Amino acid sequence: MLCNARLATMVGADYGLIDAGCVVLNGDLIAWAGPEDGLPAEYAQAERRDMGGRLITPGLVDCHTHLVHGGNRAREFEMRLQGASYEEVARAGGGIVSTVGATRDANLDSLIASALPRLDAMIAEGVCTVEIKSGYGLDLDTELRMLRAARKLGEMRPIRVVTSFLGAHAVPKDYAGRADAYIDEMCIPALRAAHAEGLVDAVDGFCEGIAFDTAQIARVFDVARELGLPVKLHAEQLSHIGGTKLAAEYDAISADHVEYATAADAKALAEAGTVAVLLPGAFYTVHETQAPPIAAFRDEGTDMALATDCNPGSSPLASVLLTMNMGCTLFRLTPEEALRGVTLNGAKALGMTDRGQIAAGQRADLCVWNIEHPAELAYRIGFNPLHSRIFGGQQ
Amino acid sequence: MLCNARLATMVGADYGLIDAGCVVLNGDLIAWAGPEDGLPAEYAQAERRDMGGRLITPGLVDCHTHLVHGGNRAREFEMRLQGASYEEVARAGGGIVSTVGATRDANLDSLIASALPRLDAMIAEGVCTVEIKSGYGLDLDTELRMLRAARKLGEMRPIRVVTSFLGAHAVPKDYAGRADAYIDEMCIPALRAAHAEGLVDAVDGFCEGIAFDTAQIARVFDVARELGLPVKLHAEQLSHIGGTKLAAEYDAISADHVEYATAADAKALAEAGTVAVLLPGAFYTVHETQAPPIAAFRDEGTDMALATDCNPGSSPLASVLLTMNMGCTLFRLTPEEALRGVTLNGAKALGMTDRGQIAAGQRADLCVWNIEHPAELAYRIGFNPLHSRIFGGQQ
Ligand SMILES: [Zn+2]
Ligand SMILES: [Zn+2]
Repeated sequence: MLCNARLATMVGADYGLIDAGCVVLNGDLIAWAGPEDGLPAEYAQAERRDMGGRLITPGLVDCHTHLVHGGNRAREFEMRLQGASYEEVARAGGGIVSTVGATRDANLDSLIASALPRLDAMIAEGVCTVEIKSGYGLDLDTELRMLRAARKLGEMRPIRVVTSFLGAHAVPKDYAGRADAYIDEMCIPALRAAHAEGLVDAVDGFCEGIAFDTAQIARVFDVARELGLPVKLHAEQLSHIGGTKLAAEYDAISADHVEYATAADAKALAEAGTVAVLLPGAFYTVHETQAPPIAAFRDEGTDMALATDCNPGSSPLASVLLTMNMGCTLFRLTPEEALRGVTLNGAKALGMTDRGQIAAGQRADLCVWNIEHPAELAYRIGFNPLHSRIFGGQQ
Repeated sequence: MLCNARLATMVGADYGLIDAGCVVLNGDLIAWAGPEDGLPAEYAQAERRDMGGRLITPGLVDCHTHLVHGGNRAREFEMRLQGASYEEVARAGGGIVSTVGATRDANLDSLIASALPRLDAMIAEGVCTVEIKSGYGLDLDTELRMLRAARKLGEMRPIRVVTSFLGAHAVPKDYAGRADAYIDEMCIPALRAAHAEGLVDAVDGFCEGIAFDTAQIARVFDVARELGLPVKLHAEQLSHIGGTKLAAEYDAISADHVEYATAADAKALAEAGTVAVLLPGAFYTVHETQAPPIAAFRDEGTDMALATDCNPGSSPLASVLLTMNMGCTLFRLTPEEALRGVTLNGAKALGMTDRGQIAAGQRADLCVWNIEHPAELAYRIGFNPLHSRIFGGQQ
């Protein structure tokens, strides 16, 4: 039993704050949480751990990452800042092509080894659940290998890894100009193979002018539906081509990026129960100027999550805490919306209802912070006040 | 002797990169650095430490911080995002006034205790030299106490702390409308007292419409000159009122912020040898849109440094690595300029020539990184690849 703590339960308004609170653990679950003076008699004799008045939040959730990938794109980052044009960067082998090449060249151990420091950085900030996508293989072997690496990472560390199959991420060189053939001949068969191996928790796609159109994504989603897998979508990041509406039509668990979504899209998401996942790291890195329609999401009651989008190109961001600050500073979320975005709504974006709040029956994934008020989590920039992290009841 | 390393010496162009390099330490100094195959015979028998091909840079320098202060401004951050007006925030006790109050209320131990986690975060990222300012006391006792806290922090941790007296930071309530009287009756006497106690390494000011004009700053700088102390200035952050020119006229070691500096200012800084210290954390936090005149700085050969500006209001940023990324992403610095800004030029902004490069005779302050190329330091966001840190020859 954790006592003498302030709890940001995320149940109800104002962070669900409870002062002088207490959390009773039972195995990997929370048995009871509330103000200490309301502790049921049955727990009165439970062993007490004094939290020294610290703040406890639910364990953090990063619901959108490309954590597993080969190589990095630091030289491309540097070339651009030295004034190189897009063509020059492309000629030098830059862009997503370079990550696909490096990922295809990496074996399972090397994919795991390169992802581990990023995963450990997240764990050090209190992340207890992380989503990891495929999508840099774009061939059968590499897509499966990325997902196997993701599964293995979840066994190596005390963290829950959730996978998304993102075969529909980009059209690889060998299918240039033949996106339909890529979807039908490679992407969908790879999805079936990955699912058969138990590697897929959800199916994702990149719906954009430079990637796949709604009809192509719909074919992938139809197979996901047939396999009983939830879907999610990179939608409306650079332009408005209907991905958000498509996601809502397929009852997607999330629509991600959504800078160019409209008020009508916000309404469609809310009605479908689809979470809008905001990715300020990509917004910041690509110098986007159009922020997602936060006001419309609030008006329509669309749930908003926040995630790192940790990837080697458009968002080499590994910090969920910094993501919260960026959500507030760049998108004008409130600190409470930011915290809900990496707890309750982050879990919802993964289709999970067993985590993201401090309440009886929820998983005992908890973060103990050396701060007084939860707004401090989003307020500071590049600072980690984590005191300790409890995953499934284990510190 | 550290060997099998890639060195970013910061001597000359392209990071002063040396592959298969070697650094020979002698006490707290570097005795020799260069390619291993050029190792002088006298060091051939020195004990070798294999760095596994890792990158070594000079120890990092954060040349502009307000690390010591009471309280935090998270609730104010939250109020603003909840839509409160400036007046409402001020009525609720927000703004610099709240930090002045909390700092005046904090005793020496409490100032030290609250600053330590921020200092430790910097050390964890490889910072070996940090500047800390006064300026939240605005009365004699508190200004001295802040500087004593800064000195004490330097004794408690393996890091060199450099202090700046910033009595001319803001006009306190009790001197409202009487800025001249504040300068003459409080600020200058406090400077003399702090100097007499050996607490002052440099003298700083905030030259801005909302703070002090150039004539008021000049009076403080005259006293600094009399005392033999170098000067620096917060200049041209929100508007152009001549602070940069003033700083150059007084041969300041740095002019800081400088978003609104002109090409003529850039020339004056270059001619005076004054470093332009760029503070992207504040630019980001206050939603500034005018970036400093980087092109003019490059054209005129003005040295550019980068710093966190770590402070509770306009830049609650504690990460030098993130500052490097922001310098590149927000100001379009190259990764090399960013690294030079937190090594060689950061040191220069503090008037120090004994650190900031890997070369014979420099202090043995070094960072060993788990990366291949120095561009990776600025490329990643919210990720710390530090392997180990050597301060004055000691790990
Ligand atoms: Zn993504
Ligand atoms: Zn400052």
